[in-house]
Amino acid sequence: YPGNFAPPPVNDPMLSYFRAIAGQDGEIDSEELQRCLTQTGVSGTYTPFSLETCRIMISMLDVDMTGKMGFNEFKELFAALNGWKQNFMMFDQDRSGTVEPHEMAQAVSSMGYRISPNTLSGIIKRYSKGGRIAFDDYVACCVKLRSLTDAFRRRDAMQQGAVSFQYDDFLQCTMTI
Amino acid sequence: YPGNFAPPPVNDPMLSYFRAIAGQDGEIDSEELQRCLTQTGVSGTYTPFSLETCRIMISMLDVDMTGKMGFNEFKELFAALNGWKQNFMMFDQDRSGTVEPHEMAQAVSSMGYRISPNTLSGIIKRYSKGGRIAFDDYVACCVKLRSLTDAFRRRDAMQQGAVSFQYDDFLQCTMTI
Ligand SMILES: [Ca+2]
Ligand SMILES: [Ca+2]
Ligand SMILES: [Ca+2]
Repeated sequence: YPGNFAPPPVNDPMLSYFRAIAGQDGEIDSEELQRCLTQTGVSGTYTPFSLETCRIMISMLDVDMTGKMGFNEFKELFAALNGWKQNFMMFDQDRSGTVEPHEMAQAVSSMGYRISPNTLSGIIKRYSKGGRIAFDDYVACCVKLRSLTDAFRRRDAMQQGAVSFQYDDFLQCTMTI
Repeated sequence: YPGNFAPPPVNDPMLSYFRAIAGQDGEIDSEELQRCLTQTGVSGTYTPFSLETCRIMISMLDVDMTGKMGFNEFKELFAALNGWKQNFMMFDQDRSGTVEPHEMAQAVSSMGYRISPNTLSGIIKRYSKGGRIAFDDYVACCVKLRSLTDAFRRRDAMQQGAVSFQYDDFLQCTMTI
């Protein structure tokens, strides 16, 4: 059937970039992603982009649970990263290249999360170094906050702000992110 | 009161080691801990010890929530690390220097956790690189598993295997580890 022919391959520069990073197996794992993001300099520093953040991002997009990213997931990731970068720069009001605790409190509240001051301060401490939050840690924090909130909401069908977790389900929600 | 005098300072080699790592402020933060553990070669490789694991270990021991470790916390940490190292070597039965999925399943079950195959496989994927779990990721996994299980148990007073979480409490348990 002529109608079954695939469309002619489009010369997509993103696709050759993806192939160069993915290598032989045609998929991007967390270490390949880390090398790629460190090279792009997206975090604005010369230190390696956090491997932990790469894992968190992959697990966010990895619907087929392979621990690796195909081309479509990779494109989604880049779009998301650009969004976070803009967002990060918006809240870095003194342009220090980092988000400080009071800037983070504004960011979190502008994203619509309602978190107690005590919990927020624990979260900020967890993702900061020397009192400042770098871009890669900012992304890790935002992704985890979103994933955990989504997981919570899916189980809070009545929107009561409380969820009953079985132990195994609790671990699945929290250990695999 | 003579009885109030402090005991004469003992020449504790661990203390001078601690002071050298802690520097000016007399406390060890996650980056200082990472440098220290990378130098000790405890993970058996030349790659840097995971910063993420350092943060997780500090948050485990950091009862006063400063994000840093004092001398006593540091000593506790070293004792715990030695325990995990022995444990890790015990489950690395083929002495590959890494724990493979089937070895990890044995380790987790020997620690007394009862986790469904599906959740376990998600956890193993999350903490492995190329299908193998390195020592620093092993520690991160064990500490998180313990902290989350402890947090769950404390709320499961009736031992029913189910806990009702308020949203803020859920985030505090899961985002600050
Ligand atoms: Ca700033
Ligand atoms: Ca402390
Ligand atoms: Ca092994």
